Amino acid sequence: MKILTLNCGSSSVKYAIFNWDRRETLCKGVIERVGTVHTYCVHEVNGKEKQIINQECDTHMEAVKLILRLVASPLHGVIKNINEIDAVGHRVLHGGEKITKSVIIDENKLDIFKELKDLGPLHNPANIMGIEAAKDLLPNVPHMAVMDTAFHQTMKPEQFMYAVPYEWYDNYQIRRYGFHGTSHLYVSKRAAVLLGKDPSEVNVITLHVGNGVSLTAVKNGVSFDTSMGLTPLEGLIMGTRAGDHDPALTHYIMEKEGLSVSEVDNILNKKSGLLGVTGRYSDRRDVIEAMEKGDERAQLALEMECYRIKKYIGSYAAALGRVDAIIWTAGVGEMSPLIRAKAMEGLEESIGIKFDPHKNDLAKSRNAEFDITGSHAKTKVFVIPTDEELVFVEDVVALLENRYDTYTHFRYSFEDPQYRNKMRDIEFQKELRKSPEMAAALAQVPWEYEVRTGLRRL
Amino acid sequence: MKILTLNCGSSSVKYAIFNWDRRETLCKGVIERVGTVHTYCVHEVNGKEKQIINQECDTHMEAVKLILRLVASPLHGVIKNINEIDAVGHRVLHGGEKITKSVIIDENKLDIFKELKDLGPLHNPANIMGIEAAKDLLPNVPHMAVMDTAFHQTMKPEQFMYAVPYEWYDNYQIRRYGFHGTSHLYVSKRAAVLLGKDPSEVNVITLHVGNGVSLTAVKNGVSFDTSMGLTPLEGLIMGTRAGDHDPALTHYIMEKEGLSVSEVDNILNKKSGLLGVTGRYSDRRDVIEAMEKGDERAQLALEMECYRIKKYIGSYAAALGRVDAIIWTAGVGEMSPLIRAKAMEGLEESIGIKFDPHKNDLAKSRNAEFDITGSHAKTKVFVIPTDEELVFVEDVVALLENRYDTYTHFRYSFEDPQYRNKMRDIEFQKELRKSPEMAAALAQVPWEYEVRTGLRRL
Repeated sequence: MKILTLNCGSSSVKYAIFNWDRRETLCKGVIERVGTVHTYCVHEVNGKEKQIINQECDTHMEAVKLILRLVASPLHGVIKNINEIDAVGHRVLHGGEKITKSVIIDENKLDIFKELKDLGPLHNPANIMGIEAAKDLLPNVPHMAVMDTAFHQTMKPEQFMYAVPYEWYDNYQIRRYGFHGTSHLYVSKRAAVLLGKDPSEVNVITLHVGNGVSLTAVKNGVSFDTSMGLTPLEGLIMGTRAGDHDPALTHYIMEKEGLSVSEVDNILNKKSGLLGVTGRYSDRRDVIEAMEKGDERAQLALEMECYRIKKYIGSYAAALGRVDAIIWTAGVGEMSPLIRAKAMEGLEESIGIKFDPHKNDLAKSRNAEFDITGSHAKTKVFVIPTDEELVFVEDVVALLENRYDTYTHFRYSFEDPQYRNKMRDIEFQKELRKSPEMAAALAQVPWEYEVRTGLRRL
Repeated sequence: MKILTLNCGSSSVKYAIFNWDRRETLCKGVIERVGTVHTYCVHEVNGKEKQIINQECDTHMEAVKLILRLVASPLHGVIKNINEIDAVGHRVLHGGEKITKSVIIDENKLDIFKELKDLGPLHNPANIMGIEAAKDLLPNVPHMAVMDTAFHQTMKPEQFMYAVPYEWYDNYQIRRYGFHGTSHLYVSKRAAVLLGKDPSEVNVITLHVGNGVSLTAVKNGVSFDTSMGLTPLEGLIMGTRAGDHDPALTHYIMEKEGLSVSEVDNILNKKSGLLGVTGRYSDRRDVIEAMEKGDERAQLALEMECYRIKKYIGSYAAALGRVDAIIWTAGVGEMSPLIRAKAMEGLEESIGIKFDPHKNDLAKSRNAEFDITGSHAKTKVFVIPTDEELVFVEDVVALLENRYDTYTHFRYSFEDPQYRNKMRDIEFQKELRKSPEMAAALAQVPWEYEVRTGLRRL
């Protein structure tokens, strides 16, 4: 069974083809700059070098067409023709209170997404364009929506309500929803495996730090509170989003600069965050490089980001009581020892979170799980590469096979203590040859190494 | 030396006359509903019963006139005529980055307040009206401004900057300012006394919970971070203010309800918070009473308020590292064992904050300091009645005597280990006669009791 996953942003489309029978990603990629000039596609076939393909795509329809041509092409393809695709999984940002778990997209569901478009003005229109394009091009297979909000449906009103007029909730469902759900789901369930505990028994704080950033307090295995809110604007400082700030700022800057509210919204989402503070950089690697060269605003931006993460860790520790582990994930969480170290600095005395600086420095891979806990600390500190696509694929397959249920009743393959992502293990073997000391920080011995030597860590 | 203090809100004016030589408040009161109908004044002369005086006041000018008539009247007065007033201290909400400490108000300062009016649209115009009225009626004495933001001037950019375009700070000074400064100052310095430490050595979290709510992380005796921001809208849930929420909400509700941004601002400030969630109540006593009668939205509002306080305590504990004490103050903080208990529930395991439930129940007075720490806990939990007026008066006197400096270099009378508010002690003696077991939770033995018995606690 072969599944296509699509993740349509306002100017990008991510995709992957997954062979479910062999539990393998056949290829994956991303088309960038859709709808602007110089569109390009980074396409990666499993086991081969990445390819850059330059081709203009003015619309999401053209981007999906390009993807379908690529995956079935003799040169870059992994399937003979697109009829081999059995189903398509679409990442969808927002279903309000109406679509709260993975679903098969019929006309009715599509209407609901359209109706809720305003709840995610930057994402929902792109999601809808992607669904319409893919349904047009692959009309004979089922299309499923995997919701970014689904994991957070377990939140209670004390956590998800805002202190605004109650009618705003009744009439317009204004509340906290939370996003990055598939990522928080994946890493919290993997953490339960690494802790050797049943998922329903673990309290963890999951830190998804990428271009978008969100933190989730997971209590007894389910989402208890999360930092993103009605939209992905709330919470931590992000690449280009402001995160938490005084909401009165909107009115103030509108008057000062003569801006409309949607112009301010756009600036708060696309020109703020690290980009706003530094004036130039949203990628943390650029921010860190500039800081190291003495750029004071880059330094400030980094200090601000890490300080805010630290405060959220503290607030979720207070909310949870017992914290079994905190988990770093996503591009920055997996790859930036500096940001992790700054955010966790001084947390031992206040809330007992302690990391091993050496192991933290070693933990820099998107292919392996690390345990960077400091000695004698009760709360574990893990770095776990996220795998949102795998959650998509398993939801799609379960929907196809009519055995899907919300995650509180559903067991994913990666919850098995024996689960290993063999492809990642193979990738990691390559990394390990370049930097063998990385192994010292691993949470689990890599699969290939284990097979070869019989050695296991956890 | 006699000082008049004035605290002008949009529809209320609070006042007091203080005799500095005898360190005594001669009278205090508040005029409510200024500018609307049924204005009334609650006037209290030291040692006498409260009086209600009904008199319409259409303007702040008329309210100040009424105050000056009352304090010098044969029936309600405490001075023979208004020429006995040596100076006036005005509470002023916002001085932006231009007025950052207590100052003598000259024309230039008044112009700056006017220029910054937009930074506190709900408070600044009233502050300015109050200053102009009082200067008009008492033209021959100096008028001083005591800033609500002054205490928070020690915050660093990592704490006070928002992740919005940097030019917004450069051009319009958009940043976190923080408010309730005189209250956070007073209780943090009193906590240092109760801890027996030099103020520059204490790390405390001060929880000012009244109709307005703000929390401050005090590090080495100075404000390190605080929950209110550019305006008093940000932070905790308040009587009628929303506190933290997704700023994207403004645009969304504007479109749904056809509101202007200033209408939304007004709702977020005046019709949200506990009032918004319950639909009826902003006073915590009403909320608790309704909850006890089974009102589910009152219950929700209370749970939300306490949960948010708990999260802020956690975030500031993470920010501070070591926490010597947390301090409850202001109307709710001093008088609501229920809200304190709910907000601190479960904090022992995560951050080591433990309170004694029995002592917490006993601590219900606006006249005495309580120590409600749980046994063997490293972090103390204090309930300290705030005294913002005393900070005003001391700043005014120091300005008059040309020995004023910012609080980091200034020593207030209440920092003396021997300091006792004798009037409050006398009031507390009365309360103690009604509920003698309250004494078990005291941080210090009351002054009169000490004189009588020679017994001291701390």
